[in-house]
Amino acid sequence: MSTVKAAVLTGPGRLEVREFPRPRLEPHQALIRMELSGICGTDKHCFKGEGLVYAGTMMETTPAFPIIPGHENVGVVDEIGAVARERLEFSGRPLGIGDRVVMCPDVVCGTCWYCRNLHGMPWCEKQRCYGMSLTCDAPPHLFGGWAEHMLVDTDVFVYKVPTALSPELAVLVEPMVVTATLEKAKEMHTSAREGFASGDTVVIQGVGPLGLFHVIRARMLGAGHIVAVDFSPERLAMATRFGATTSLRVDSTTEEERVQAVRDLTDGRGADVAVDCAGVPSVVPEGLEMLRKGGTYIECGAFVEMGTVPISPHRHLCSKSVRLIGMTNHPYTGYDSMLRQLEIYGDAFGMASIITDAYPIEQASAALQRSMEPSSGKVVIDARRGS
Amino acid sequence: MSTVKAAVLTGPGRLEVREFPRPRLEPHQALIRMELSGICGTDKHCFKGEGLVYAGTMMETTPAFPIIPGHENVGVVDEIGAVARERLEFSGRPLGIGDRVVMCPDVVCGTCWYCRNLHGMPWCEKQRCYGMSLTCDAPPHLFGGWAEHMLVDTDVFVYKVPTALSPELAVLVEPMVVTATLEKAKEMHTSAREGFASGDTVVIQGVGPLGLFHVIRARMLGAGHIVAVDFSPERLAMATRFGATTSLRVDSTTEEERVQAVRDLTDGRGADVAVDCAGVPSVVPEGLEMLRKGGTYIECGAFVEMGTVPISPHRHLCSKSVRLIGMTNHPYTGYDSMLRQLEIYGDAFGMASIITDAYPIEQASAALQRSMEPSSGKVVIDARRGS
Amino acid sequence: MSTVKAAVLTGPGRLEVREFPRPRLEPHQALIRMELSGICGTDKHCFKGEGLVYAGTMMETTPAFPIIPGHENVGVVDEIGAVARERLEFSGRPLGIGDRVVMCPDVVCGTCWYCRNLHGMPWCEKQRCYGMSLTCDAPPHLFGGWAEHMLVDTDVFVYKVPTALSPELAVLVEPMVVTATLEKAKEMHTSAREGFASGDTVVIQGVGPLGLFHVIRARMLGAGHIVAVDFSPERLAMATRFGATTSLRVDSTTEEERVQAVRDLTDGRGADVAVDCAGVPSVVPEGLEMLRKGGTYIECGAFVEMGTVPISPHRHLCSKSVRLIGMTNHPYTGYDSMLRQLEIYGDAFGMASIITDAYPIEQASAALQRSMEPSSGKVVIDARRGS
Amino acid sequence: MSTVKAAVLTGPGRLEVREFPRPRLEPHQALIRMELSGICGTDKHCFKGEGLVYAGTMMETTPAFPIIPGHENVGVVDEIGAVARERLEFSGRPLGIGDRVVMCPDVVCGTCWYCRNLHGMPWCEKQRCYGMSLTCDAPPHLFGGWAEHMLVDTDVFVYKVPTALSPELAVLVEPMVVTATLEKAKEMHTSAREGFASGDTVVIQGVGPLGLFHVIRARMLGAGHIVAVDFSPERLAMATRFGATTSLRVDSTTEEERVQAVRDLTDGRGADVAVDCAGVPSVVPEGLEMLRKGGTYIECGAFVEMGTVPISPHRHLCSKSVRLIGMTNHPYTGYDSMLRQLEIYGDAFGMASIITDAYPIEQASAALQRSMEPSSGKVVIDARRGS
Repeated sequence: MSTVKAAVLTGPGRLEVREFPRPRLEPHQALIRMELSGICGTDKHCFKGEGLVYAGTMMETTPAFPIIPGHENVGVVDEIGAVARERLEFSGRPLGIGDRVVMCPDVVCGTCWYCRNLHGMPWCEKQRCYGMSLTCDAPPHLFGGWAEHMLVDTDVFVYKVPTALSPELAVLVEPMVVTATLEKAKEMHTSAREGFASGDTVVIQGVGPLGLFHVIRARMLGAGHIVAVDFSPERLAMATRFGATTSLRVDSTTEEERVQAVRDLTDGRGADVAVDCAGVPSVVPEGLEMLRKGGTYIECGAFVEMGTVPISPHRHLCSKSVRLIGMTNHPYTGYDSMLRQLEIYGDAFGMASIITDAYPIEQASAALQRSMEPSSGKVVIDARRGS
Repeated sequence: MSTVKAAVLTGPGRLEVREFPRPRLEPHQALIRMELSGICGTDKHCFKGEGLVYAGTMMETTPAFPIIPGHENVGVVDEIGAVARERLEFSGRPLGIGDRVVMCPDVVCGTCWYCRNLHGMPWCEKQRCYGMSLTCDAPPHLFGGWAEHMLVDTDVFVYKVPTALSPELAVLVEPMVVTATLEKAKEMHTSAREGFASGDTVVIQGVGPLGLFHVIRARMLGAGHIVAVDFSPERLAMATRFGATTSLRVDSTTEEERVQAVRDLTDGRGADVAVDCAGVPSVVPEGLEMLRKGGTYIECGAFVEMGTVPISPHRHLCSKSVRLIGMTNHPYTGYDSMLRQLEIYGDAFGMASIITDAYPIEQASAALQRSMEPSSGKVVIDARRGS
Repeated sequence: MSTVKAAVLTGPGRLEVREFPRPRLEPHQALIRMELSGICGTDKHCFKGEGLVYAGTMMETTPAFPIIPGHENVGVVDEIGAVARERLEFSGRPLGIGDRVVMCPDVVCGTCWYCRNLHGMPWCEKQRCYGMSLTCDAPPHLFGGWAEHMLVDTDVFVYKVPTALSPELAVLVEPMVVTATLEKAKEMHTSAREGFASGDTVVIQGVGPLGLFHVIRARMLGAGHIVAVDFSPERLAMATRFGATTSLRVDSTTEEERVQAVRDLTDGRGADVAVDCAGVPSVVPEGLEMLRKGGTYIECGAFVEMGTVPISPHRHLCSKSVRLIGMTNHPYTGYDSMLRQLEIYGDAFGMASIITDAYPIEQASAALQRSMEPSSGKVVIDARRGS
Repeated sequence: MSTVKAAVLTGPGRLEVREFPRPRLEPHQALIRMELSGICGTDKHCFKGEGLVYAGTMMETTPAFPIIPGHENVGVVDEIGAVARERLEFSGRPLGIGDRVVMCPDVVCGTCWYCRNLHGMPWCEKQRCYGMSLTCDAPPHLFGGWAEHMLVDTDVFVYKVPTALSPELAVLVEPMVVTATLEKAKEMHTSAREGFASGDTVVIQGVGPLGLFHVIRARMLGAGHIVAVDFSPERLAMATRFGATTSLRVDSTTEEERVQAVRDLTDGRGADVAVDCAGVPSVVPEGLEMLRKGGTYIECGAFVEMGTVPISPHRHLCSKSVRLIGMTNHPYTGYDSMLRQLEIYGDAFGMASIITDAYPIEQASAALQRSMEPSSGKVVIDARRGS
């Protein structure tokens, strides 16, 4: 095969299929034959032209059209250079043809202040991102997962997938690593009941895929009550299947009723933890109201600039004694651990069923449309399927 | 009923059944009609006369013979004073006749330096303990759970059991709260990979009941590999059923082989966490050898003085960069949370099956003998059963 | 002496001197002969009628006029009941006539969910507060420090002052305990550079007394650059004297210039920690803009409801990956430790000079007026001085 | 100058002066003109032939004789390659001729599991160390600080020194970063009174240079009582000068008396924190005995294998509920922060006076002898001085 087929986003709302030449590899590069690539909320925002991410600090134009989308990727090593064999894998495992791998889409420089001092999070001053900030305009082109092949090199964090783990579970690793938010809240737990402790009441605001993964992770970490909030009955049903104990329909309740419902679950106090997985500014004060004094709020949903919301420093922050964790990106140190958890817990939690739809590359546009329907779960591009 | 039947330990190895008068209650007291009371490792030590606990700081003679053993207790409120109705329950829930309750066996003064400054752990300078340091010699006698009734007052931490939770699961709450060791290790987790993170490799040294509960909790908190170490094939089989992924038989392997087996599981590094649930001094250096650099050791098994073991400050502590958590007792703030977890996860984990044997009060001696057999799991006294 | 003179706030702006009968003590009570009582920002808010504190959860009307203000108190035991001698002192030290003591103004019930589970912080559901929520209308009246005597009982947390510590330093203990915010941020420090580490750049927004105490504590905990922001040149000068390395005048700079000034100090990144000690909503987004990615914001200044401010969940919270600590009240477990620090570090830091003015009880109104002038530091009522 | 003079340790006890050719630089290298290089405890151990470090995991023979000792280094850039100008400095600051720099002696591979997952600590599987594991046998020879010049490249962590900081303070940065042990203990502090809080009582076992630096850091972080334990009256006097509040002479007291002295300081409880800076196994159980329940023990002194000591898992670990932090090496992320602290606090603490003696390169042997006398503080090699 001398050409590589890929879906290309040339601008907001404009998706087309292109063919690229298969690149000749340098010694530190590898070519991955793609299996599955998930559609993330960011992809939807980019498609809709809601593109200001990272508060505008990372890219002047976001995304860097034209791009090959796709940053939740799993595939198999198809060709690999001599240096990459020894040094590509994140923790030093040797890699060879046929090995299944996943990757962290964020690529960092390794030498700026953030890279030097803040290991784990890709808050690099020169951060680049597969499927978003790396254009496919110039060779070697293949910096996104909605394609037959994807190119990586030793600057990219690539992780070997345990042999027992299916691509259908491995493709979930990236968004599952995003739920390190809850692990972070767990680190913050002390006997002063900060952060997230086993048995705690956790509210998930918005149970699209990001919210569903948080429901699953909350359950994997020993949560007590899990309250799912959404307007989609299909998504609330999925949340219940994955472990949510209470559902709150946004379209048939008022904010006051939802806040009261959470208090009723907790002897009048409020939730221990609430997580914004909705990305709509108005959910933030609602989530803060739902918390008990000293509760923890996780803001990981506002990945794109959607405007401001009025917050009272007294009511919502100081007198609430809130602990708030903002979290953009996800830790590149979390992949190995999450792969192991998917191997151990994936089937017990029925996690593969979070994928409701798979489309071939040629139908990427239909896939994106489907992912924006409230009855969908995770939608993936399956590069193994012809159109 | 005007008398209360109880098993009484009058000295090492001497267990008999006595009748005590049913006490007249003060307003701040309640009488619990016992259902189940578990046998703990401490009970076995007391029975064998290995009684130096708390490094001798708590009691001059340990235990305070004669005692009614039993500190893992669940029962139902049989009679309750007016003050106790409002103030007995730990978090302020009103209590009435028929309510099922569990209790923290450790009773604290509330006003010493430890009580004032170190909330959560019963490290009180005047700590007393049901079933161990409170004699049954003088009225009102009933300070242990191997009896038809047990007396509590507002100085005791008593917790209402969720109505959906069976006594067979509720009786497990006390030893499950002991596994807060792992929750503590989880608090210590940072991006420097200290403490216990999801996906980590955890070694449990000794899988008697305490070790089995740690296997379950490690699984509930998202552990990766769980390595069970014991000499009893029955207990290793139970550990596997509850989630251990590797078994190491102590009687058919050398220490070197066991350490190597753990390294082989972890690309040569060693375990992230090891927990002493054996209570035998020699396991400590072995567990430390099993850890990777920066690993975490939990010492919660050496509840009774069993002598010293040689430790190299260089090899085992400094150059290992170990984090070591010693943990006596368990947090009285952990009961509500654990009751909720037993309600949510108890059936999914098949936890009730950890109880392998139940005996009536009259057969307490047989129960103790059975609990010391390596094929037993948790053995309980069932006060509902006649002899 | 059979009467006790006190300053009484009968309503917003109305302060008068009254005489109360000296109470007859119960066994669990003590009468404190007042030495000094500080004026806090809350006192100023109450005087101005800006009284909605604790988001309205604690008191229906706030404060509970008429009140004797004064909750930063130091005095000497003048009379003490038999029970109080043994049980009044926080950590169990015996107390006698002539002993100097300070107290935590927040009084908690000890049995609600917060008291049981959240030790350290007075987030009690039935919290009462000396000098604010306890009226002096009914006997025994003396629940505030702007008086010749103050009444305490064993429900109050009272701490013995080291004999070497002067009243002028001891009166600073309460607001210094409020700076436990920085200690909390220090607890949160990890190798992912969260929270507050030695050498970090710290911004203090507002250097009235609360801000000055934060400057001092930041220095005591090893801060690097300390940036003081205020409009008062006198207060900025005091901040510099106590260790601030950079001053930013609010009246002669724009928000953009101040944000840029902080970035210039930090190679363009932004501060590691910012603390709201101003209590004005608009400082919150400014402080968030001043932080680097992963920086920590402490909201301890918005003690009274002063309205809302627009916050962007994307820009200020998520993409900033902020850690935000809201903190109302202060830990009652922090007094002993802070008394010891005042003893060791008070003179080295010249802390007594933070008190710029002292007034007798009769001049409480003048004292309040003075405390609201931007050239004042901490203003105290000195009960030892006649008018 | 075409040759470089250096002190060379050719084997235990054998130190001589050699001349090496000045190397021709590669683009990623720089040559540092040495100013000062401190003598560390490890140097003394190496000189005495007590060389088993890192539990034997790092080097087959330790050290890799012949070596140029010296890993606490400060100097000035004398020559620098084009790549090194842009990429040598740890946080990305450009470097040029004449810039003063310090360095982390531990050199890591950047790609092994520890380097990838455990950022901050040099626990690399292929760790090399200036002045110890890098032989000077082969070109380019210059891997130690007791020389006129030292060679570094972009694999080494090099930090630009603030212009206001003297070499006499900058040379202290490496051992001061070792006291990150106390910062780690501070991170561990929670409201359950674990770790190290402001105002806490801290015992330093052994106040040679490592212990003196811990005294200073404890003071910089707000410790309360600081108890210095040593046999040298000169060193105890220095400890007092740097902030220790109590001195315990090992030669004129028994272990029981010292333990009791610590209890007497703390109302009978014991210290909150104890730190082994002595490196003698027997101090470990003594230090553990000195702790209160839940106290924290830091093992950072046993850098070289000196044998085992009997520890009771019950008495010293479990019933003590100890938190123990083993710490080998020091965090390479701590240098920038500590340089800033030396700039701000160095003079106030009179830190330069910890250097009691300086010797030219030719007198390295005399310097080592002097450093082993109990009346010495930090001894340095001053490359600027002729013999």
